Amino acid sequence: MNIFDNISALDFRYYGRNERIFHKLQPYLSENAMIKYMAKVEAALTKTLAKKGVCSKKIADEVEKATKKITAEEVYQEEDKLKHNIRALVNCIQRKVSDEAKPFVHFTTTSHDIIATADAARYKKFTENVLIPKLIEFEKTLIMLALKEKNTLQVGRTHGQHAVPITFGFALAQYVSRFGRSIIQIKKTGNNLRGKIAGAVGSYNASSLFFNNPVEFERDVLSELNLKASPISTQIPEAEFMSSYIHSIVEGFGVIANLADDMRHLQRSEILEVAEVFGAKQVGSSTMPQKRNPINFENVKSMWKAFMPRIVTLYMDQISEHQRDLTNSASLRFVPEILTAFYLSVSRLNRTMKNLVVDKENLRKNFDMNKGLIVAEPLYILLAAKGHPDAHEIVRQLTLKAQSSKKSLTEIIKKEKSLQPYLKKFNKKQLEIISNPEKYVGIASKKAESACKFWKKELEI
Amino acid sequence: MNIFDNISALDFRYYGRNERIFHKLQPYLSENAMIKYMAKVEAALTKTLAKKGVCSKKIADEVEKATKKITAEEVYQEEDKLKHNIRALVNCIQRKVSDEAKPFVHFTTTSHDIIATADAARYKKFTENVLIPKLIEFEKTLIMLALKEKNTLQVGRTHGQHAVPITFGFALAQYVSRFGRSIIQIKKTGNNLRGKIAGAVGSYNASSLFFNNPVEFERDVLSELNLKASPISTQIPEAEFMSSYIHSIVEGFGVIANLADDMRHLQRSEILEVAEVFGAKQVGSSTMPQKRNPINFENVKSMWKAFMPRIVTLYMDQISEHQRDLTNSASLRFVPEILTAFYLSVSRLNRTMKNLVVDKENLRKNFDMNKGLIVAEPLYILLAAKGHPDAHEIVRQLTLKAQSSKKSLTEIIKKEKSLQPYLKKFNKKQLEIISNPEKYVGIASKKAESACKFWKKELEI
Amino acid sequence: MNIFDNISALDFRYYGRNERIFHKLQPYLSENAMIKYMAKVEAALTKTLAKKGVCSKKIADEVEKATKKITAEEVYQEEDKLKHNIRALVNCIQRKVSDEAKPFVHFTTTSHDIIATADAARYKKFTENVLIPKLIEFEKTLIMLALKEKNTLQVGRTHGQHAVPITFGFALAQYVSRFGRSIIQIKKTGNNLRGKIAGAVGSYNASSLFFNNPVEFERDVLSELNLKASPISTQIPEAEFMSSYIHSIVEGFGVIANLADDMRHLQRSEILEVAEVFGAKQVGSSTMPQKRNPINFENVKSMWKAFMPRIVTLYMDQISEHQRDLTNSASLRFVPEILTAFYLSVSRLNRTMKNLVVDKENLRKNFDMNKGLIVAEPLYILLAAKGHPDAHEIVRQLTLKAQSSKKSLTEIIKKEKSLQPYLKKFNKKQLEIISNPEKYVGIASKKAESACKFWKKELEI
Amino acid sequence: MNIFDNISALDFRYYGRNERIFHKLQPYLSENAMIKYMAKVEAALTKTLAKKGVCSKKIADEVEKATKKITAEEVYQEEDKLKHNIRALVNCIQRKVSDEAKPFVHFTTTSHDIIATADAARYKKFTENVLIPKLIEFEKTLIMLALKEKNTLQVGRTHGQHAVPITFGFALAQYVSRFGRSIIQIKKTGNNLRGKIAGAVGSYNASSLFFNNPVEFERDVLSELNLKASPISTQIPEAEFMSSYIHSIVEGFGVIANLADDMRHLQRSEILEVAEVFGAKQVGSSTMPQKRNPINFENVKSMWKAFMPRIVTLYMDQISEHQRDLTNSASLRFVPEILTAFYLSVSRLNRTMKNLVVDKENLRKNFDMNKGLIVAEPLYILLAAKGHPDAHEIVRQLTLKAQSSKKSLTEIIKKEKSLQPYLKKFNKKQLEIISNPEKYVGIASKKAESACKFWKKELEI
Repeated sequence: MNIFDNISALDFRYYGRNERIFHKLQPYLSENAMIKYMAKVEAALTKTLAKKGVCSKKIADEVEKATKKITAEEVYQEEDKLKHNIRALVNCIQRKVSDEAKPFVHFTTTSHDIIATADAARYKKFTENVLIPKLIEFEKTLIMLALKEKNTLQVGRTHGQHAVPITFGFALAQYVSRFGRSIIQIKKTGNNLRGKIAGAVGSYNASSLFFNNPVEFERDVLSELNLKASPISTQIPEAEFMSSYIHSIVEGFGVIANLADDMRHLQRSEILEVAEVFGAKQVGSSTMPQKRNPINFENVKSMWKAFMPRIVTLYMDQISEHQRDLTNSASLRFVPEILTAFYLSVSRLNRTMKNLVVDKENLRKNFDMNKGLIVAEPLYILLAAKGHPDAHEIVRQLTLKAQSSKKSLTEIIKKEKSLQPYLKKFNKKQLEIISNPEKYVGIASKKAESACKFWKKELEI
Repeated sequence: MNIFDNISALDFRYYGRNERIFHKLQPYLSENAMIKYMAKVEAALTKTLAKKGVCSKKIADEVEKATKKITAEEVYQEEDKLKHNIRALVNCIQRKVSDEAKPFVHFTTTSHDIIATADAARYKKFTENVLIPKLIEFEKTLIMLALKEKNTLQVGRTHGQHAVPITFGFALAQYVSRFGRSIIQIKKTGNNLRGKIAGAVGSYNASSLFFNNPVEFERDVLSELNLKASPISTQIPEAEFMSSYIHSIVEGFGVIANLADDMRHLQRSEILEVAEVFGAKQVGSSTMPQKRNPINFENVKSMWKAFMPRIVTLYMDQISEHQRDLTNSASLRFVPEILTAFYLSVSRLNRTMKNLVVDKENLRKNFDMNKGLIVAEPLYILLAAKGHPDAHEIVRQLTLKAQSSKKSLTEIIKKEKSLQPYLKKFNKKQLEIISNPEKYVGIASKKAESACKFWKKELEI
Repeated sequence: MNIFDNISALDFRYYGRNERIFHKLQPYLSENAMIKYMAKVEAALTKTLAKKGVCSKKIADEVEKATKKITAEEVYQEEDKLKHNIRALVNCIQRKVSDEAKPFVHFTTTSHDIIATADAARYKKFTENVLIPKLIEFEKTLIMLALKEKNTLQVGRTHGQHAVPITFGFALAQYVSRFGRSIIQIKKTGNNLRGKIAGAVGSYNASSLFFNNPVEFERDVLSELNLKASPISTQIPEAEFMSSYIHSIVEGFGVIANLADDMRHLQRSEILEVAEVFGAKQVGSSTMPQKRNPINFENVKSMWKAFMPRIVTLYMDQISEHQRDLTNSASLRFVPEILTAFYLSVSRLNRTMKNLVVDKENLRKNFDMNKGLIVAEPLYILLAAKGHPDAHEIVRQLTLKAQSSKKSLTEIIKKEKSLQPYLKKFNKKQLEIISNPEKYVGIASKKAESACKFWKKELEI
Repeated sequence: MNIFDNISALDFRYYGRNERIFHKLQPYLSENAMIKYMAKVEAALTKTLAKKGVCSKKIADEVEKATKKITAEEVYQEEDKLKHNIRALVNCIQRKVSDEAKPFVHFTTTSHDIIATADAARYKKFTENVLIPKLIEFEKTLIMLALKEKNTLQVGRTHGQHAVPITFGFALAQYVSRFGRSIIQIKKTGNNLRGKIAGAVGSYNASSLFFNNPVEFERDVLSELNLKASPISTQIPEAEFMSSYIHSIVEGFGVIANLADDMRHLQRSEILEVAEVFGAKQVGSSTMPQKRNPINFENVKSMWKAFMPRIVTLYMDQISEHQRDLTNSASLRFVPEILTAFYLSVSRLNRTMKNLVVDKENLRKNFDMNKGLIVAEPLYILLAAKGHPDAHEIVRQLTLKAQSSKKSLTEIIKKEKSLQPYLKKFNKKQLEIISNPEKYVGIASKKAESACKFWKKELEI
């Protein structure tokens, strides 16, 4: 099949053609990976049987060797006949071992022991080996930027309106903090995915035919795969380990979508405080050659819109009748898509933020626009502190006056007689802020620094 | 790339390996199809330019010929350089035509004129040529079954509790009716997908350089593709033609998910009124050889859980800033997945229902279980009609008595003195129903018939 | 209960305290309304029984009179005892009629006959009497604005970037068109809500004890309420009439959310092309007196975020087992919230748009910002049309040059030797556009006009 | 306003009329509660100002006293004039204090400092004081039931099909475990909700006019309310503390929805292993007096369908532009609805499970239905273990034979010559299981016990 015959844009566009990304994700999130991991679970099972003396070590070795040769192609061909994917896998392994070894393949387990355990193992490893390192790489980029711009004056914006000053590094630091927390959550929930070797309905019916302590047997099989067992299982592990993991992914996706959206708006023609770097040969628009579009920021937001709603599937999959109905089977096969989309979006945003163009001139120009009004807040507060009985209202009125007369609020204040008794009580620093709104930046820079410092330490980066 | 290296279960499992389905969907829903349709739009554009005298017919022919040779591979290679997919397509076409023809490729249009129009054209054709025929095939299966079983007595169930009798054909007829309506909706909304050739911001800026009536020009280009224009466009057509289409798909998906769920429950061990047919070599469970699982019904429900939530993306994509932000670009690339999943599920359910095993013995057995209580409803109503002042309460009490004494309600009624004056007023047919609950089936059979008749006519099948 | 003891912000804040809105919605969407409508259904039922000769007209009159006296209080008190809301309603009615009339209350129907029919009737009337008039009022506001501003030059924006010119009226016209279509959809689906009088499992078991044609009986009862019957029912009508209705509501909500979002961004400090009118006593911020926030636009977007996802409930409620499980009972009680939120948001947006401040100075200022580059598109297209072999690329390069040299593209073009042979071929109008980018507005004004004209006629307004 | 004039079913039906529940939730989740908590935040603020020497203790006492008198009515009346809810609150407080105290009300804070902190405080307290105790009460009920039924034989069901045996206590134990984990998560995320006193854009602009360490000041104010600060804030705290909290609620809701669904199906007429207890005067159906419906289980599932999708709002609310847009303001007002619905559903399910009727006769009857086939699994595994080369296939065939001949698999096995050599190798216990399928229950009972023991200890109950 030609790659462009695929239906999913992940396969033909975002992952399939990007060699670097393909090599990162294929070993965990492709179907080849799934087959490989299921074979690994079967190998771990027989190995543990041997350790427990149920079969010989020779048999375990034989099975392990066989599992390493399993290909997706042969399993799928066998499944075409049997209409049962795990029985197909088992048959394929059995064909590669001696008659003596055959019975100990898949011994005492049910299909979903293998599937759930393989999924947990591959997502856990993916999280550990591929996802977290990428998230940390991005966190480093954010920290680098936040520190670099910690003193870069920017007008703070609420409701899309100029409010009071911050620094651009402070604005970025909120993402350092929020994304740092997401990394921790993803690490924790990814690391906590659970396998199960508890049999058809979870009560160890089959394994207890052979083991006095089948829970211990389960623990031993899973520890071969570096996994813990679901505290209790039916045919499936407790669903919430997976839904919590995907929640943490989707929540992290929300954080980067927010960042992308923020940057996208800061790149608006009228604002243009930041911009994506633009290749010399890159085309902005097929018809408007002058355009420089924030296509990477837009892509991240768009991917979030495409993948965030899929969490609803996970919540619906929490409901499985009795010891399980199979209505979570096909749906679980789409989980790797969510992981892929998140990885892709973090990668893309990392590349984009790393090369972010920060236009200090425009930052200053935008700041200056309403500079004259910014002092409204400190003025009102200082007036109040100095005893003015109705500070908010008087400042509101003076602001309207400043706007209609196109004068700066500072000027107007200085001429407003009724305020003079209060202004006299202002100390030097306070008077300075009233005259120089750019000083009214609170502890933006320090806060950016402390957030970065915290996460560097927390993540050991 | 090996098929099993893919991430999406659609690509590696459900669509990619099923030759019959692959050949149905690839021409519309793959990326190859998208490139092909975009090239078609470019051809239609130049063709119309020639008709309007902007360029020669020779040029239009040259361009059309070139567009037919376009491959996804070359377009993607070009995009790798330019980072712009439509400019890449245009370059690829231009390379294949004379210098004289080059300027008239993509003439006056913006990228999204091509993309939106191609999407509308391929989804519309897919709906018409592939989806609707499959939906009708399934509707026929349902009609066939509903008519076949129109007289098959079944206990009606509400709240999972035995209520009053119906026929199994009547139960199926609700799906004939609901799915019939879905077909009409999908046909209507699919047929109403809109293209646009209105330029970068939708006000025909470029095309009005050359045409006095650029709306007419747009109409002519689109009519080459059998499409109508969005009434007004920005860079994109009005979003609601697409969201309404996907709503109708998702709503149809809900109908079949309901049917699948219904059948799944009727196949429960304790009920077993229907069953999926089971291949002689098929394996039910990897460890419980006796199991016969409703895996196809389960699969349909599971696919619904995986795809229904994706409608939320379409609703979010209704919001696009000003003349458009690009945050609906990546997300729109995932629409074919929804169409694929729906087609797959209808196909699967069609195969399964066609071969549905209906177990009349069990239908009867289940009916008989609470047969003695079924007469409660007609009794209460008839008593009321004959003047009993508190019919519901007396019947409720007698029912409790029947349950505790394990007698049939009919027996108890006949011995209940206080009822005799009323029972005397019952006519023959009414008395018969009180004694033979299976007669209390209303017009189930007739209603099944009339629903089938209606939809046969409506859909001309 | 004090109004502020309520949990829902609809009840204590948005609807409950707004007298005008309260009086519009209470008669349809409150629980009092629901009880009233259910009583109406019971009255229609007995009335039809009388017409069919099953009971006397006197009885029907008695029942009708009784139903008019029913209060929510008494029904709920009765329900507290019985734990069954419809039996409670029936008891309350029966208490108010003669013994002779009692049996004919609720005769042959099941609870959900009453509930589903009452819901359909009240939502239909609400749509017709309250919602559609409000939607049309808003459509009129939009048309008024679009026509008023049809010639107001505005820079078109894609990706948040200045693209090519439009008019502000044209920008608004897309909402005239999209919202117009929404009105039609809501009207159609609201008008098409269906009742049912088909009994406990939908096969008319009870009513066929008395009528040869129970379908006709159902039709007659429903026509008293100006409703049509669900084509087929189980215990419930076909779910898709309701899900389609709510889809059309949610889709319309998406349109106004987009408009609100658009305006919100146009009110940004750096753009400020429009602004919400601001009361003389209104407070912008509790701490920044200078702020003028787009709080109404924000509210509309926020309400959309709170209510759009609830459509998922409707899709889940399509699935009901066999002749019905009751898991759609509580969830259906929340449908009025969606209708309320939509009505509130349209009302709010109507008020806000009616008084929209359009700042023509800023519109012009923003337009002028990149005026020098806007000609890139027409230039490239005209060069191509005049035979330039690589028009897009040359214009792209000149644009970069213009940007780096801070000159206007027009200037640079005029000095670029290689272009002179082509420029000579431009006609007068074409040369004019190259020099006066504000003329490059396509048919924006005309298109705004035609959209308004179309919807005025279509909606007869 | 009459309670039945409300729109939300929570207000008029589920919460508003249930005195016990009303008194539990009103102090945290009503608007009166919100106003009360916001006033508390204002009091904590001035108290801390006094501690820091910015104002006198007398002033702080005055303010605290005033805040305790604040009513929702007066605040809303003031808001009607100002169109700003927090300024309204501040005005109301100021009116109740001396001129000297006035300036120190709301001093240095922004509206959302008060709102976000009040929300965090009330949800945290609600979680601690009301929700968690209720969840634990329910967990106790589950533990009680799981232990009581730990030895009650039940057929395990997968795919709705009889699989291998479990005990009913084991089936319940999965909910003990899953719900136990949910309690921990809700406790953790509820306890971790964060406030903020960081001013208009989060950089402490105003408070740093007065404090060298405004972060410490924030910490001190919040510690008065037993809260921690968001690590970094913009105008709003980091959104993920709230989205994680609601995720844990929704995930817990999924667990109880699964339990409710499970029970609902076990109450099916054909299964009837459990049933909701039914009041002597309760009405099952308005028209079918014999019905006993699982209305409470259905209600829980229905509420889950109505509220689960609302998590999507929280994910959308993670996106807030720059230092905040206000599009999360209205939407946040609906969070109490989710908490209310969850509390109601847990309460209802607790009542229902506490009185669950467990029908041992039916449990046994259902078990016996396919008793003859249950041994298929142990037989296949034991045969394999004893060296049979194709155990799964032979057992599959014998099972088909058993089914067609209506004999028990045990009988057939004993007569199957080819198996005799293997059967001889079975030990006594193994032979016993083959003959007595009810012994094939694994460690169901023990596992139920250990799960209950674990959670008793973990939750200290």
